[in-house]
Amino acid sequence: MQNKNLMQKPPLANNHISVDCVVIGFDGEQLKVLLVRRMCEEGGEVFHDMKLPGSLIYMDEDLDEAAARVLNELTGLRNVSLVQFKAFGSKDRTKNPKDVHWLERAMQSKVERIVTIAYLSLVKIDRALNRGLEEHQACWVALDEVGDLAFDHNLIIREALAYIRQYVDTNPAALFDLLPRKFTASQLRTLYELVYGKSVDVRNFHKKIAMMEYVIPLEERQQGVAHRAARFYKFDKKIYNKTRR
Amino acid sequence: MQNKNLMQKPPLANNHISVDCVVIGFDGEQLKVLLVRRMCEEGGEVFHDMKLPGSLIYMDEDLDEAAARVLNELTGLRNVSLVQFKAFGSKDRTKNPKDVHWLERAMQSKVERIVTIAYLSLVKIDRALNRGLEEHQACWVALDEVGDLAFDHNLIIREALAYIRQYVDTNPAALFDLLPRKFTASQLRTLYELVYGKSVDVRNFHKKIAMMEYVIPLEERQQGVAHRAARFYKFDKKIYNKTRR
Repeated sequence: MQNKNLMQKPPLANNHISVDCVVIGFDGEQLKVLLVRRMCEEGGEVFHDMKLPGSLIYMDEDLDEAAARVLNELTGLRNVSLVQFKAFGSKDRTKNPKDVHWLERAMQSKVERIVTIAYLSLVKIDRALNRGLEEHQACWVALDEVGDLAFDHNLIIREALAYIRQYVDTNPAALFDLLPRKFTASQLRTLYELVYGKSVDVRNFHKKIAMMEYVIPLEERQQGVAHRAARFYKFDKKIYNKTRR
Repeated sequence: MQNKNLMQKPPLANNHISVDCVVIGFDGEQLKVLLVRRMCEEGGEVFHDMKLPGSLIYMDEDLDEAAARVLNELTGLRNVSLVQFKAFGSKDRTKNPKDVHWLERAMQSKVERIVTIAYLSLVKIDRALNRGLEEHQACWVALDEVGDLAFDHNLIIREALAYIRQYVDTNPAALFDLLPRKFTASQLRTLYELVYGKSVDVRNFHKKIAMMEYVIPLEERQQGVAHRAARFYKFDKKIYNKTRR
């Protein structure tokens, strides 16, 4: 029965599988996404654009392995915790001839359709992390400055952000990994605003912080600032875990 | 740079993409999964076993479309809301020659590797839903009676259940869609026990229900039962939505 169905129906796709990594980082001021440069040639004209770090998988590797390998090869990053969040397989993913030509040249074979398994990581951007990015032609781009990317990579980033919002709703601890050990209310608020993509009222946000038993006000305040020095807070993981059940 | 990498490295996978549908249903007593029968031939011997409803995708369809199409073709089910929950792409998925032979016969082409995109649906099992299952050789199997399935389908079901638990933690309303409009505390408890895979203390559970403002006790009680007639409850969606923020 299944055999018969398969033979009467439209052709099966000649597929390639790729992994793409959405690494979202916070540098204390902005949320950024890690992109790599791509060289394209179209109609004899060479130009550069940007894409997510991603590539086709090899025969001998699992999806998670492929994601870690590709991220390392294209950006130099290692030991970044990647979580699979969604497969993207629209038949329109390869509708832009520019993308198909680029990939067919890279692979030296015909490309009909590529299903990509998208991975996500949330990181704190610091010097250690950035070591080696440049030689890989990888760079951080602020989310509101991301232009038209290859394939459906703009869509993948949008869905990654939706996933992060949902995740943070139920696991607020994830945000504190992105902040310095001691942070100001304003830094935490900025991060909330960036993640949720909307401005948050300062006074309401102070109430919200007061409700979070696991955000502990410290005696210490900012030093060497022109304006009124802001208080520092810290995230208390033990209290957080207790409030979680 | 990326071109060079691709050419020096191990071969790219010759991939096929499938979708598999994990439809989990509650019939008032048990949690069941919808499986289809498969005929295999191995060493001249014909035998039957079970698998999730799933198949390869066609060239002209998106992943979500493929999932709906395959579920309908293999089980007759229509209009079931399917959510993509995870891609399974271990290179070991096709390590059992039985599975590869079955698929190669069905497809009439060589199969090296199949990445499957798994979809999930939670349904209430009732007569309307079951119309047509039999002629498709599809059937409901209680979760604790599921034997060895094709490919990695046992793993896919386990991960689907983990996904459901996580989902229900943050969206308890999902459970009430599986119950009759009026339900007893015992039915709700059974459902919790099945979803979380562990027994729940009766008295604690009554306290838990009392805490759920959106579970409303009714005056009505069970009729025609030998033991003490249990009270009915209903789920109040309006109150639920209010408590959600």
